[in-house]
Amino acid sequence: MDHKEGQYKVADLSLADAGRMRIEWAESRMPVLMKLREEYSKTQPFKGYKITGCLHVTKETAVLIETLKACGAEVAWSGCNPLSTNDSVSAALALGPNGDGDGVEIYAWYGQDTEDFYWCIDRTIDKTPDTTLDDGADLIFRVHSAFPEKTKDIIGGSEETTTGVHRLRAMAEDGKLGYPVYAVNDAETKWDFDNVYGTGQSTIDGILRASSVLIAGKNFVVAGYGHCGRGVAMRAKGMGANVIVTEVKATAALKATLDGMRVMPMEEAAKVGDIFVTATGMKDIIRGEHFLSMKEGAIVCNTGHYDVELNLQELAEVSTDARMIRDDNREYTMENGKKVYVLADGRLVNLAAAEGHPSEVMDMSFANQLQAHLALIRSHEAGEEMENTVLDLPEELDQEIAEIKLETMGLSIDKLTDEQVVYATDYSAGT
Amino acid sequence: MDHKEGQYKVADLSLADAGRMRIEWAESRMPVLMKLREEYSKTQPFKGYKITGCLHVTKETAVLIETLKACGAEVAWSGCNPLSTNDSVSAALALGPNGDGDGVEIYAWYGQDTEDFYWCIDRTIDKTPDTTLDDGADLIFRVHSAFPEKTKDIIGGSEETTTGVHRLRAMAEDGKLGYPVYAVNDAETKWDFDNVYGTGQSTIDGILRASSVLIAGKNFVVAGYGHCGRGVAMRAKGMGANVIVTEVKATAALKATLDGMRVMPMEEAAKVGDIFVTATGMKDIIRGEHFLSMKEGAIVCNTGHYDVELNLQELAEVSTDARMIRDDNREYTMENGKKVYVLADGRLVNLAAAEGHPSEVMDMSFANQLQAHLALIRSHEAGEEMENTVLDLPEELDQEIAEIKLETMGLSIDKLTDEQVVYATDYSAGT
Amino acid sequence: MDHKEGQYKVADLSLADAGRMRIEWAESRMPVLMKLREEYSKTQPFKGYKITGCLHVTKETAVLIETLKACGAEVAWSGCNPLSTNDSVSAALALGPNGDGDGVEIYAWYGQDTEDFYWCIDRTIDKTPDTTLDDGADLIFRVHSAFPEKTKDIIGGSEETTTGVHRLRAMAEDGKLGYPVYAVNDAETKWDFDNVYGTGQSTIDGILRASSVLIAGKNFVVAGYGHCGRGVAMRAKGMGANVIVTEVKATAALKATLDGMRVMPMEEAAKVGDIFVTATGMKDIIRGEHFLSMKEGAIVCNTGHYDVELNLQELAEVSTDARMIRDDNREYTMENGKKVYVLADGRLVNLAAAEGHPSEVMDMSFANQLQAHLALIRSHEAGEEMENTVLDLPEELDQEIAEIKLETMGLSIDKLTDEQVVYATDYSAGT
Amino acid sequence: MDHKEGQYKVADLSLADAGRMRIEWAESRMPVLMKLREEYSKTQPFKGYKITGCLHVTKETAVLIETLKACGAEVAWSGCNPLSTNDSVSAALALGPNGDGDGVEIYAWYGQDTEDFYWCIDRTIDKTPDTTLDDGADLIFRVHSAFPEKTKDIIGGSEETTTGVHRLRAMAEDGKLGYPVYAVNDAETKWDFDNVYGTGQSTIDGILRASSVLIAGKNFVVAGYGHCGRGVAMRAKGMGANVIVTEVKATAALKATLDGMRVMPMEEAAKVGDIFVTATGMKDIIRGEHFLSMKEGAIVCNTGHYDVELNLQELAEVSTDARMIRDDNREYTMENGKKVYVLADGRLVNLAAAEGHPSEVMDMSFANQLQAHLALIRSHEAGEEMENTVLDLPEELDQEIAEIKLETMGLSIDKLTDEQVVYATDYSAGT
Repeated sequence: MDHKEGQYKVADLSLADAGRMRIEWAESRMPVLMKLREEYSKTQPFKGYKITGCLHVTKETAVLIETLKACGAEVAWSGCNPLSTNDSVSAALALGPNGDGDGVEIYAWYGQDTEDFYWCIDRTIDKTPDTTLDDGADLIFRVHSAFPEKTKDIIGGSEETTTGVHRLRAMAEDGKLGYPVYAVNDAETKWDFDNVYGTGQSTIDGILRASSVLIAGKNFVVAGYGHCGRGVAMRAKGMGANVIVTEVKATAALKATLDGMRVMPMEEAAKVGDIFVTATGMKDIIRGEHFLSMKEGAIVCNTGHYDVELNLQELAEVSTDARMIRDDNREYTMENGKKVYVLADGRLVNLAAAEGHPSEVMDMSFANQLQAHLALIRSHEAGEEMENTVLDLPEELDQEIAEIKLETMGLSIDKLTDEQVVYATDYSAGT
Repeated sequence: MDHKEGQYKVADLSLADAGRMRIEWAESRMPVLMKLREEYSKTQPFKGYKITGCLHVTKETAVLIETLKACGAEVAWSGCNPLSTNDSVSAALALGPNGDGDGVEIYAWYGQDTEDFYWCIDRTIDKTPDTTLDDGADLIFRVHSAFPEKTKDIIGGSEETTTGVHRLRAMAEDGKLGYPVYAVNDAETKWDFDNVYGTGQSTIDGILRASSVLIAGKNFVVAGYGHCGRGVAMRAKGMGANVIVTEVKATAALKATLDGMRVMPMEEAAKVGDIFVTATGMKDIIRGEHFLSMKEGAIVCNTGHYDVELNLQELAEVSTDARMIRDDNREYTMENGKKVYVLADGRLVNLAAAEGHPSEVMDMSFANQLQAHLALIRSHEAGEEMENTVLDLPEELDQEIAEIKLETMGLSIDKLTDEQVVYATDYSAGT
Repeated sequence: MDHKEGQYKVADLSLADAGRMRIEWAESRMPVLMKLREEYSKTQPFKGYKITGCLHVTKETAVLIETLKACGAEVAWSGCNPLSTNDSVSAALALGPNGDGDGVEIYAWYGQDTEDFYWCIDRTIDKTPDTTLDDGADLIFRVHSAFPEKTKDIIGGSEETTTGVHRLRAMAEDGKLGYPVYAVNDAETKWDFDNVYGTGQSTIDGILRASSVLIAGKNFVVAGYGHCGRGVAMRAKGMGANVIVTEVKATAALKATLDGMRVMPMEEAAKVGDIFVTATGMKDIIRGEHFLSMKEGAIVCNTGHYDVELNLQELAEVSTDARMIRDDNREYTMENGKKVYVLADGRLVNLAAAEGHPSEVMDMSFANQLQAHLALIRSHEAGEEMENTVLDLPEELDQEIAEIKLETMGLSIDKLTDEQVVYATDYSAGT
Repeated sequence: MDHKEGQYKVADLSLADAGRMRIEWAESRMPVLMKLREEYSKTQPFKGYKITGCLHVTKETAVLIETLKACGAEVAWSGCNPLSTNDSVSAALALGPNGDGDGVEIYAWYGQDTEDFYWCIDRTIDKTPDTTLDDGADLIFRVHSAFPEKTKDIIGGSEETTTGVHRLRAMAEDGKLGYPVYAVNDAETKWDFDNVYGTGQSTIDGILRASSVLIAGKNFVVAGYGHCGRGVAMRAKGMGANVIVTEVKATAALKATLDGMRVMPMEEAAKVGDIFVTATGMKDIIRGEHFLSMKEGAIVCNTGHYDVELNLQELAEVSTDARMIRDDNREYTMENGKKVYVLADGRLVNLAAAEGHPSEVMDMSFANQLQAHLALIRSHEAGEEMENTVLDLPEELDQEIAEIKLETMGLSIDKLTDEQVVYATDYSAGT
């Protein structure tokens, strides 16, 4: 472990060169964020502000972090999951773009225990942040629970995930939220891209890297048919699987059915599934009794934010043996003699076993993150009152981000003519 | 034409038997609406009220109409499109379920001119309705423009389509809406099913009936990637087409791209397309210059509500000849010598050339319609003040309708355990 | 019925104009056949020969017939299925392209009984044909069984279908085939296009026209996963169904599984299916016990050549009532109280309820037919000995036909360089 | 490098435990081969014979090798590609199932040069094999070119790939093949599964591991639409790409079109593609001029057997710089300033960057290999004359293998009734 107090704690600084190339690779696939970097590095809107983040330390996050820095911010960062940090990337971030040590404050390595996890977060809070940037809301919860006095000095925050936003809304409704938070997840250019196409592909990627099994012809069970679950189901189908969906929400179940998936309760799905992925944001989706009813050789994983969707404690209780059979793939031999395989110990398989969402979708998600923090700083500087609640980014922003994205992809679209603009709101025209 | 004043004007009463069988067929595919009919025919919530509707006279609409009647309503109806009435169904409605003349007031036949169209609507307004039910908002606009004094006696209305809701919102914002209207279209169990799966399939169906061409291998251009356009694109792809999408909205264009479609402006798409479908809600999507640049033999149609999406006047101006080559398929020979084929004269091809949306999706849309009118009557009877604006149906209703639908399909889903319910709002749980 | 001895017997000559327009429509979608017509109408290779055909009288077949005639042949034709003749097309064929009576000898109308069926075939045999052209082998079987003495005067024949070729091979192996027959079905540009994409789309089309049900979300059972069955399954999946395949062949079943379909025996599929299509070429695929185990409202049809795949006699025996509920859709009420719906009385649903395969695929199939008869005549004129067996068309022909097709679609492909040509057969090059 | 003369030369014996677990994982996914192992290990059909193989040393191949050994064979093995050996697997093979050194003769490691490559092959030939087992025909070519005198002692061989079979047929036609070779590739249970579903998935897998880019929304160019190319195209489409196919064969190009792909020459495809995969079996598919016309950031790889499909020498000539940016991903900066990324240095990306075909498909391919060698030995022992040509495995074998596979997947299918069996060959039944 390489540790320099107040600056970084990462696994191995010698990995920095490899990490730097990964970051460059990501930069080449994130044109929207790079364009915003170019623009705002001139005006330095974050000059004098400290942005603290807690979000998977991947090559894409590195592009966000270095963009924030390029636009003037002082940045401190921790990973938001014990198994999602890429050690080469964290090393490169610590040493900075030129490898000369002019990096950002970063505390992150792959394979942490809970104590490590909070130690890292706490280090990023040491100097009070002006804004916080979350993925799963652990940083913001930590500030509220362990450093409540700091909330009043914080201008605002942002949250990346469905799960996190869901919880922050509950907290706000309860009057417990200490500062305003932008629901970056709820921007259309985030949830309708990152969650669907990003989670879809990267989950398949994670499963393949950890198991290398043929997807075609498999009964592929997806728990949850929200944006993430739909993305996973769509891609599993695209790889030739027969997809089964479990749900608790009737409208989602119906959509899955009309999309050609089979719908059934987990109790039944457990018996016929070959591969299982949970994407619900809920705990205890696959429990001891489900594991016991599975077929020999079933593969089970989770792509939801927290590692609570698979109840591995119950699995351990009904197992007589467990061993790692390959990276990110643990074989449990159950008391009934059957074996099941759990990938990435129930943590998000796309980040632990693969590289998380592709750069191309993080490009838009992180453009929204950048914009959220710009909005917080602007409101602050304009002296605007912001309620301590969960805020939405303006919808125009989605069109702006999407327009840049299309442009960078070399695609152009139509524009309304003047007459069409008039027609759009002319309620007198009829049949 | 069979006409009985104050009771009906339909094409041919002798078609009633065929129409009755069509209605029975639809009933067998609309279990949600039939279940609601069974329930509310006992309590007669519409007793003493007159519901006036203006909506495509199809076998599915007949099931809605007869359900309203069975639940106590007096009903008067007109079609909402000159080419969408099924003459056998209107005959059956006029004569009633037993064919004894105990039908509903109905003024509708296939192939109307504008004068006919408004004559029919006006007949349904003659006796002032208590509530109005619209698809495209023609009835409500007619009430407001031609019989403004009647608006004050009307409890409320409902609207079925994206286009109609869009216009009513503009009208309400302008302070011109004379009574409250439920946006049935905006119910999730309507727009995320009817518009996607219904329009998708029925548009392909209409194209096949009117042209019988192979879809596979064609460049299939879809203008608009809203719910309807996405449904059409998805099905065209499912039939083997290479799909091109034109859009004015960047986020929609980007989604189309990530769904594997090609995106380009209509100017370019016009040159390479084999089949064109407009689904935008906007006028003048395909204009004279586009038609002129098309390939020999291009097939062009519209599935949006109004017939303004194709500018057929401009096409006529650049054409030297036009003839019907088969039902719903008009061949234009253009001045450049090339031929293009316009289906259903630019009116919604799914209703004019096929049978509109399948019963299974109208089942849910019309369950929402029934619920909207129940809500209007209940509020009225409870003496509640309702603003003259566009109202949303409660979200719980979606789950209710979807649950009934799943049940009638023989599907069951999971239920949250008590512990999971607690977890759902527990923002203290973390990584 | 319009009948002129030795010339035609068709349903109604007044339909000729509508039929002529249908034929013109087909011509515009069959560029390969039209190009061959242009070429060979100059050289008149069929001058002095009589070609007798027995093949579905559709608009596409009309293009083939009139091409044969334009290339010099005398033609006599009957339909090869009691429910597949388009009466407007047969009328147009009788009257000829100019409507002046200079048509072809044709005996065909929609809705024949067995006696009619063979009467028509026999009329086409009256004057001994030089070559026979079959779809299902009924003409050739009739010649062999009823007019065996004529076989020695016949140069050869051709057969369009998998089923027909299968039987002719059995006959040839048995030494009972009286003249050589080209297996047009076995040309790659036939079976790998017509059977897959043609049957796939047209079967869905037939089901929609006869029932108008939503395909999405349905359990769609396809019996047989040969080329036709795979085409149907692929398109049903493309329309959002969950597809179940039944098979007797293990390799086919395995492919279906890896294509994401579910595989099970018919006994199980019968219980869960919503829509059933048979495409096996085998009899008694769906029997009395299967019908009895179906869900209320199940829809059942066949797209295989003969009407033996559904055992409708057994269905009738277990039914208490039957009525036509709409065109091509018969409702059976079974003794267990449940209703099932049989489309097109078990005859090929794509031809009986829709228009058969799209022109674009028949274009290639019929180009092969033309080439088969050219080959027969050429061999005959060259005095070549041809064995009385089932012959394959030369493979180069497939590339020729496909090249013309691509060209007419405006598509170009790569050519091997000289060095690549050398490499192609250079077995000395290694890793 | 660990080397024991006459026994093994592998990268690192200490990797054996990891390799053994990989092999166990593969065994659990290869039930057909394991069932055959169980059966034939009792009868020891290979007792006294030496089987020499040259085939990618993966976990699946290890299962084949150890099956051959379990059935009595003496085995010697080399890898058939410089970049496809898994070093942990080769170590495990060297040490044997119990890790006690009772392994097979194996000469294979990742990252060989040409000299190494042939050294390994030669070691396996040192003691003359009774049968040879090839993937790409390098072993058999080596025997013929370097040890021609040994061919007369060799009973026969087998070949795994399209490319290899193609060359062996050319060789046999030229009268240069020294012993009979079974075309394992041409067994339906091999080419219609392994080549399609195996190559399809594993190529996507390789691209993701080497680049981690989003597939959705990309222009994905597949050169070649044979079985492998079709598999790749299908999966790329399933991941949301817009697929472009280049071909030299008209029928294949047409099929690609009807499958919804775009078809164009490489010259055009090069300009618009984002990701390129070659799967042609031909050399120089992507040449210098193509690379130069590519978009900034294009990703290029090959999944065909030999590394000749991309002309990397020409790329090097037009490049000013090259560097590895991550594993299996080399960035070339071209003279026009643009960068392109070549994966796995043009060697089969699925084996070099991922793990090759999934165990589930290799299960069937290798069951065919086992059967081929059983057939060779049986013919030899029966004293049957075998021509020195390329032989096909009997078709019944496909059904046997597929039946076992279905059974191990828990799937059952229909059986023909006696009456159906009769009908199958009854050519007297008609319409």
